[in-house]
Amino acid sequence: MSNRPETPLLDSVGSPSDMKRFSDAELTQLAHELRSETVSAVSETGGHLGAGLGVVELTVALHAIFDAPRDKIIWDVSHQCYPHKILTGRRDRIRTIRQKDGLSGFTKRSESPYDPFGAAHSSTSISAALGFAVARDLGGASETGHGDAIAVIGDGAMSAGMAFEALNNAGHLKKRLIVILNDNEMSIAPPVGAFSSYLSRLYAEAPFQELKAAAKGAVSLLPGPFQQGARRAKDLLKGFAVGGTLFEELGFSYVGPIDGHDMDQLLPVLRTVQQRATGPILIHVLTKKGKGYGPAEEARDGGHATAKFDVVSGKQKKAPSNAPSYTSVFGRALVEHASRDDRICAVTAAMPDGTGLNLFNERYPSRCFDVGIAEQHAVTFAAGMAAGGLRPFCALYSTFLQRGYDQVVHDVAIQRLPVRFAIDRAGLVGADGATHAGSYDVAFLSNLPGFVVMAAADEAELVHMVATAAAHDDGPIAFRYPRGEGEGVEMPQAGVPLEIGKARMIQEGTRVALLSFGTRLGEVRRAAESLGAKGIAPTIVDARFAKPLDHDMILRLAREHEALITIEEGAIGGFGSHVAQLLAEEGVFDSGLKFRSMVLPDIFIDQASPEDMYKVAGMDAAQIEAKVLDVLGVAQISGKRA
Amino acid sequence: MSNRPETPLLDSVGSPSDMKRFSDAELTQLAHELRSETVSAVSETGGHLGAGLGVVELTVALHAIFDAPRDKIIWDVSHQCYPHKILTGRRDRIRTIRQKDGLSGFTKRSESPYDPFGAAHSSTSISAALGFAVARDLGGASETGHGDAIAVIGDGAMSAGMAFEALNNAGHLKKRLIVILNDNEMSIAPPVGAFSSYLSRLYAEAPFQELKAAAKGAVSLLPGPFQQGARRAKDLLKGFAVGGTLFEELGFSYVGPIDGHDMDQLLPVLRTVQQRATGPILIHVLTKKGKGYGPAEEARDGGHATAKFDVVSGKQKKAPSNAPSYTSVFGRALVEHASRDDRICAVTAAMPDGTGLNLFNERYPSRCFDVGIAEQHAVTFAAGMAAGGLRPFCALYSTFLQRGYDQVVHDVAIQRLPVRFAIDRAGLVGADGATHAGSYDVAFLSNLPGFVVMAAADEAELVHMVATAAAHDDGPIAFRYPRGEGEGVEMPQAGVPLEIGKARMIQEGTRVALLSFGTRLGEVRRAAESLGAKGIAPTIVDARFAKPLDHDMILRLAREHEALITIEEGAIGGFGSHVAQLLAEEGVFDSGLKFRSMVLPDIFIDQASPEDMYKVAGMDAAQIEAKVLDVLGVAQISGKRA
Repeated sequence: MSNRPETPLLDSVGSPSDMKRFSDAELTQLAHELRSETVSAVSETGGHLGAGLGVVELTVALHAIFDAPRDKIIWDVSHQCYPHKILTGRRDRIRTIRQKDGLSGFTKRSESPYDPFGAAHSSTSISAALGFAVARDLGGASETGHGDAIAVIGDGAMSAGMAFEALNNAGHLKKRLIVILNDNEMSIAPPVGAFSSYLSRLYAEAPFQELKAAAKGAVSLLPGPFQQGARRAKDLLKGFAVGGTLFEELGFSYVGPIDGHDMDQLLPVLRTVQQRATGPILIHVLTKKGKGYGPAEEARDGGHATAKFDVVSGKQKKAPSNAPSYTSVFGRALVEHASRDDRICAVTAAMPDGTGLNLFNERYPSRCFDVGIAEQHAVTFAAGMAAGGLRPFCALYSTFLQRGYDQVVHDVAIQRLPVRFAIDRAGLVGADGATHAGSYDVAFLSNLPGFVVMAAADEAELVHMVATAAAHDDGPIAFRYPRGEGEGVEMPQAGVPLEIGKARMIQEGTRVALLSFGTRLGEVRRAAESLGAKGIAPTIVDARFAKPLDHDMILRLAREHEALITIEEGAIGGFGSHVAQLLAEEGVFDSGLKFRSMVLPDIFIDQASPEDMYKVAGMDAAQIEAKVLDVLGVAQISGKRA
Repeated sequence: MSNRPETPLLDSVGSPSDMKRFSDAELTQLAHELRSETVSAVSETGGHLGAGLGVVELTVALHAIFDAPRDKIIWDVSHQCYPHKILTGRRDRIRTIRQKDGLSGFTKRSESPYDPFGAAHSSTSISAALGFAVARDLGGASETGHGDAIAVIGDGAMSAGMAFEALNNAGHLKKRLIVILNDNEMSIAPPVGAFSSYLSRLYAEAPFQELKAAAKGAVSLLPGPFQQGARRAKDLLKGFAVGGTLFEELGFSYVGPIDGHDMDQLLPVLRTVQQRATGPILIHVLTKKGKGYGPAEEARDGGHATAKFDVVSGKQKKAPSNAPSYTSVFGRALVEHASRDDRICAVTAAMPDGTGLNLFNERYPSRCFDVGIAEQHAVTFAAGMAAGGLRPFCALYSTFLQRGYDQVVHDVAIQRLPVRFAIDRAGLVGADGATHAGSYDVAFLSNLPGFVVMAAADEAELVHMVATAAAHDDGPIAFRYPRGEGEGVEMPQAGVPLEIGKARMIQEGTRVALLSFGTRLGEVRRAAESLGAKGIAPTIVDARFAKPLDHDMILRLAREHEALITIEEGAIGGFGSHVAQLLAEEGVFDSGLKFRSMVLPDIFIDQASPEDMYKVAGMDAAQIEAKVLDVLGVAQISGKRA
């Protein structure tokens, strides 16, 4: 506590209304304090740092000039929302962020009226803001009232097609709508795509010194509220604009680019827009990710996300890891296969580091494609490459693959093209919470004809699954694996392709068979050990494949055991449902089988450690054990039923 | 046969190579013949007419100048591919199009090497073409070789975010790639969105007479192959360009707009591009949907899709219908509710007619939003409106809802917003085939916490489900219904909200319970009648809800019957899987139950009538009856097992 910064002005802000009396100089001072507080808080909790630091001035300016929660400020992705949370009554809990029972690391409707629309995936803010603008104009009832709808969206997020769809619709509807393009030349990775080059040209044409002069001029010109004509204000806004044709062609007024760390530019521009905008307007703000905190500014990713750290040195306090991450195991295995098969190429949607493709990109830059935040295109682009004779690996997080689902069905599965899906962050992911949970991929892929769907039980299995995918030319194949470190198992010298649709016997036992799909296998083993001490020796099988299923193995397990329990890190409709369908069709249930399917429960689980989240889900070793005892009708000492 | 047009030149074209010897005048004549043949063929089969007529000249010009199948011509959506099919060796089967065992109504890889990438959903062509371009440049093996990659995409399809994502990536990669923007100011409905206005301005600035002169000039200037410098060709292309800044900002060269029905413009421009293009280039071609056939040109939708018709009069030969379509029942019911609840608004993605929202739009234009082909935005825009106090109905086809899946999860379900999803074209859809099948929605929605998922068994049930959705403010709700006419049941005076999660007993019987979800109920009834004649009187229940399930009813059915069979028009992972999970968790299988779940099989089913498709799926009355007899162990007379 003693190391926390002095923040006299910030201490006086309980909610944004307390900022209304501040002078511009005080707002500038408030921004300094807010930055210090943000650094201090994240140093204690870890979390997203760089994005928040980049919008400190913008956050202060927006809350000073607009009137939240009546005005709806919608942060795209919203990992930049820490300063916003600090200003909107959540400072006392900011050091609980991303922790169990703490604040979410993203905006969240249930958390605060100042979060009118939650986010975590990118590029939704303009659509949502347009929805609020329409609701306002149609007289929709809102507890917080209806004012301006303001989307704050990064340049990386703007590359997603969804943002274009929203601009296109907004430019057509012509409603008053404010879009702030927060251009830091950075999403998580350096930006890619022609659109990004376009933005760079826009500000290359407008040196900052000129902008600053123009903005200063604007202060003296600034119309008093309601005193000046709309035409004058329009001319004023035009005075800032040095480009932006693309946005103007889509029906937006364009203002900018302006320096997003200079309150002397931000405040007059936002005031003018607030007073004078009629239709949709885009304000192009240049910011620097990690701004004002040296170690973040100097980091390659702008201090995107961090563990706890020492504020003075910037050094992160991370527990040493014992095992390689699944992500890096995948990345290394792919490079290995690519060295022997030059048809192998790779696609990522703005996540070269997060998916482990950075390794591949270093080695084979001409075969690695970062398409930007564009999962729809990523999937069909990969399908096109596959049709052209290549063998693309499409590496995406489970939760983001949802963005390309139609393309998986329509372009990959129906055409039975050999696209390989490397699905990272499968299952519950921890601090990122419900929005990032990879809960649905097994269900939404396994019912597609011709698909092969695998889940790795540990990092050695992942190596074999990469080999399996690399060898599989007959249609699409997917393999999933979780966030974080592996189990610390011994690693194979080289991956060996698995036989498609064959499960792996882990241990033969009696009475109950535990059929695991994915990395719950560790918990299953622990449950089995504990059961062993109670005289029950379960059979354990690692299914490896949700599709095709190992019919022989599953029917044998059903035949030879009193009970069969499936366990998977996914929602209903996936592995367990396919097993149930097989058992039903084969008439196994006709004469009775104690069958249970342990799946993620029918709730969205808030952030916590993955371990805690799986406990909430009822899927840790103790809960698996309890399930077995319950199914077998064995009384538990505690008398508790699962 | 005697009415078929005279087509001497076309008769000599067995494949595009036969066109290489044609003069420009002969190519113009070939286009005339191809148009006549297209009209003649569709008059006999019905199908998509207007789009094909609009690209007759373009199709001839592309095949004359480029070298398919080495060059990859990728038709976006591909309902405009009939002339292409006629020219590429499929003329003898063109009168089987969209019929069982006939040609697909879309391009299809398995049908012809001239179809390098199939389509049916829109806006995939640029991504696919870019994939081919990359495969070419990386030396991917292709049986047909690698040449140019050419995407032909309509202005409506260009409004989808996916197309923007692909342009963005292509402009960045700078590979030779040809995109032909087929601008007919029309997708299926009149186009919407700011982008469409932008295109209109582009050609407003370029009167046709000027263009024609420029193109004619180009003929004389046209460089002989390989004789002229690249700079000259570039200047030449620039001479055509009168706008296109937006595309140029995204890294494309822009040529156009040119008249897509004037071979004197098309041929020289395409020749120049073919000989001289280096990076990505966009050719803006203006066409008229339905061109050259009066009745189609005059139709509001440009003769988009048609039944069989008389060529002279244009009059369609349609069987009179006995019952209203589900689509119109939905449309009328929604208008009725909207008259009493001014929070109700509606969103369609370029399908106002197809979804029945045309009625709503006529009555409440300010509350009806056609967002263009933009399902991602459609869903989140609706979520924003819901957060702002409105009650949006998002009306989409099941297969297109796949495009907005992540938004359904992330923006609607996680935030538990009251968006109502009206899901048309659920189940197998007939002539549009596998790409349009609505197979997955029940599975991918029912595992989302807080969702209510319904299926209408008939058109009266649909009326009640619209009422149920209109009354449901506590989170998202979806109801699905099929393509085509209702069952002809008596219609209620007004819809009455159903009790959430309660099934409907149709008839009480013994031994076997048939638990139907959706419009298979008619087949189930017929199966039951036939079974009755054999002394088996099944219980029949209409589940109405896949989520939440009617636990009491299902457990009662299980308790009181020897066998329980679920039937649904969807893939595994949906209703039947949820029932199986319930039965497993409740221990019903422990002591035995003959449980079966009839779902769509694990194959993509080709086009035919819906009846024939469901026969392939094993889900007609006879097959349901056979399933019952098999499960009950009753010998069938034929000895056949289902």
